[in-house]
Amino acid sequence: MAAAEKKSRKRDKTTETPKEIAKRIEQSAGSIVKEIETKKDPTFVTQQRGKSNVEFDEKKGLLRLGDKETERNFLNIGHARKFMQTMLVSSKTRDYLKENKTASIREIYYELKHTLGTSKENTFEDQGESDGCIVDLEHSVDTIREKLNLHANPKGTLYGDVTLRDKVHNNDIFNALKLGRGGWSIMSRIEPDEIEIKKVNAKYVLVIETAAMYERLIEEGFAKKQKAILVGTGGQAARGTRRLVHRLHTEAKLPVIVFTDGDPYGWYIYSVIKQGSMALAAHSDYLACPEAKYVGMTLDDVKEYGLENVTERMKDGDIKRAKEMMAYPWFQNKEWQEQLKKALTQKIRIEQQALANKSLEFVATEYLPKKIKKKQFLP
Amino acid sequence: MAAAEKKSRKRDKTTETPKEIAKRIEQSAGSIVKEIETKKDPTFVTQQRGKSNVEFDEKKGLLRLGDKETERNFLNIGHARKFMQTMLVSSKTRDYLKENKTASIREIYYELKHTLGTSKENTFEDQGESDGCIVDLEHSVDTIREKLNLHANPKGTLYGDVTLRDKVHNNDIFNALKLGRGGWSIMSRIEPDEIEIKKVNAKYVLVIETAAMYERLIEEGFAKKQKAILVGTGGQAARGTRRLVHRLHTEAKLPVIVFTDGDPYGWYIYSVIKQGSMALAAHSDYLACPEAKYVGMTLDDVKEYGLENVTERMKDGDIKRAKEMMAYPWFQNKEWQEQLKKALTQKIRIEQQALANKSLEFVATEYLPKKIKKKQFLP
Repeated sequence: MAAAEKKSRKRDKTTETPKEIAKRIEQSAGSIVKEIETKKDPTFVTQQRGKSNVEFDEKKGLLRLGDKETERNFLNIGHARKFMQTMLVSSKTRDYLKENKTASIREIYYELKHTLGTSKENTFEDQGESDGCIVDLEHSVDTIREKLNLHANPKGTLYGDVTLRDKVHNNDIFNALKLGRGGWSIMSRIEPDEIEIKKVNAKYVLVIETAAMYERLIEEGFAKKQKAILVGTGGQAARGTRRLVHRLHTEAKLPVIVFTDGDPYGWYIYSVIKQGSMALAAHSDYLACPEAKYVGMTLDDVKEYGLENVTERMKDGDIKRAKEMMAYPWFQNKEWQEQLKKALTQKIRIEQQALANKSLEFVATEYLPKKIKKKQFLP
Repeated sequence: MAAAEKKSRKRDKTTETPKEIAKRIEQSAGSIVKEIETKKDPTFVTQQRGKSNVEFDEKKGLLRLGDKETERNFLNIGHARKFMQTMLVSSKTRDYLKENKTASIREIYYELKHTLGTSKENTFEDQGESDGCIVDLEHSVDTIREKLNLHANPKGTLYGDVTLRDKVHNNDIFNALKLGRGGWSIMSRIEPDEIEIKKVNAKYVLVIETAAMYERLIEEGFAKKQKAILVGTGGQAARGTRRLVHRLHTEAKLPVIVFTDGDPYGWYIYSVIKQGSMALAAHSDYLACPEAKYVGMTLDDVKEYGLENVTERMKDGDIKRAKEMMAYPWFQNKEWQEQLKKALTQKIRIEQQALANKSLEFVATEYLPKKIKKKQFLP
């Protein structure tokens, strides 16, 4: 299989039909069959992943996968197993596309796991192996995982005046402001051919790290008063949640404002929403929101709002992460360097919910409205 | 404060108004004030918690807190700090009830955390301290945490033909079968005075451990075909999710069937749904479903469905847990003893999603419908 050509990157991956993608898988497989028939060493080419091939596109403000390619040869004893696995994943994924089925990445692992012939050798030993093949396949046929009908666990919740339509499910139309105070449980696949953003009545999207803060803002009537759409990520945002935020940003033209704990982990959650992640650098165009802004928590908030009593000590993991982040190209600006330096000097962190130290409603009536109105953001 | 009298256990804790509960807190506080005024050692009595005071009520089939009480004296240097903390939590909770505010247990911790006078002593050092006081207070004024307007993080999702009404939130009425394939994000507090179960059109509730299996069953149209309400717990069920399942069981008279991974962790999730948990033994009447049944996964499924290739090795934690569970009174029946013995002998576990090894739809078209029809349950 040939790796994606650069020009293909301009193709709109979201509008392709399952049939088209299945065809690309078949074409790639066909060329491998041909190699076998002509007694050539079957070769699979894909993009090199990992830090060494991730670039920061300064102009667009997002992470990208570089041009480095990697080759896998069936007759290389070090590659043979992985080659076999990639073929299994390709074949099964093509079946899903043909049958209009979707599967979780855990399910495809289990569906393909079996003992080979009379040997004691399993096709896969753990899900990490099949997950790797899926990413290879995404890159090799130049698409996104969602378009291979694959997904991971859903996570994340949506609340606010946005009307969605699930085209695949009875044409359900629902407004995420009218589901009581729970909100909608965001699916793992939020592609436009399935989920339509039908109507939006809001000024911005507020992405919130903790489920409890999401609930607090709902209880305070924040979404209505501020005309905000609330997205709770529950920690690092799942891919479906990132996709939904990206679509609210690009389709509904809503600014994205991110609100996390004031610690390296929270700031990294922000950077993944904004610039994309290293693991999914190839898909930043579909997931990232380069214009996103960061509203808090910052370590400056501690002094500004007298929260000295409710900070916590940074853990070793936080310190390590802060050091790494200081070196990332997408954190090379004055504001974030200062913030990270403060974290490393003061060795403290501050949680979103620590704002309750002022009063429960403080975050909804003071902190967020004022900061957002005055545009007191970090870039 | 006097610990709850036994007769009060028969009171319906769910119908009490915030005013009534606030009054009980005030009465208890009043008696402590009186002790101070008459120069007696202020004393706070609550129920003893932890394993040593948990009993299994065989007749009702649920865990209960025993009668052991514990006393805390302000003038005992070992108790003074905890005493002070309990008073802070009591007072703040009363404020919430008076002001009709609710808070997460993390928020009340932050709201109360401050340095005492000119000392360097903080009221609380970590949330564990305030959490303990909240449970003390629940027991002391004989109510449930939800009625103190307190809650933890929300988690869990609901899908199926059930119509809910959020009385507090614009009287929102919504049907959890009509929210696309995402479903409703279950709130952390599901009390009848806020959330009404308005209409149910289903034969049973299926409680599912993993979010991915929940999504699979939705994709397969399982809820409609089987007239089932699906509840995804995402691991151990949060309190709000347990409360909702309990209410669907008691109010809507639906049988509860639980479907988890085939391992001690999954089986324990089941037992918490069914008999309640040790930590919340005092509230089993509001959370447990003693008639719940277990549909799978069992280790017998491995042979029955030829899943030998897709089992996993049990980890040390699983083995330790299985040994503990074998000794619990509520696992003292032939079926579960056998199951646990098998786990300890074979040292394997089997995940829900391993059923994908048969085919993606197998779980929805074969495994669950057949087992449920034939009532192949574990007790």
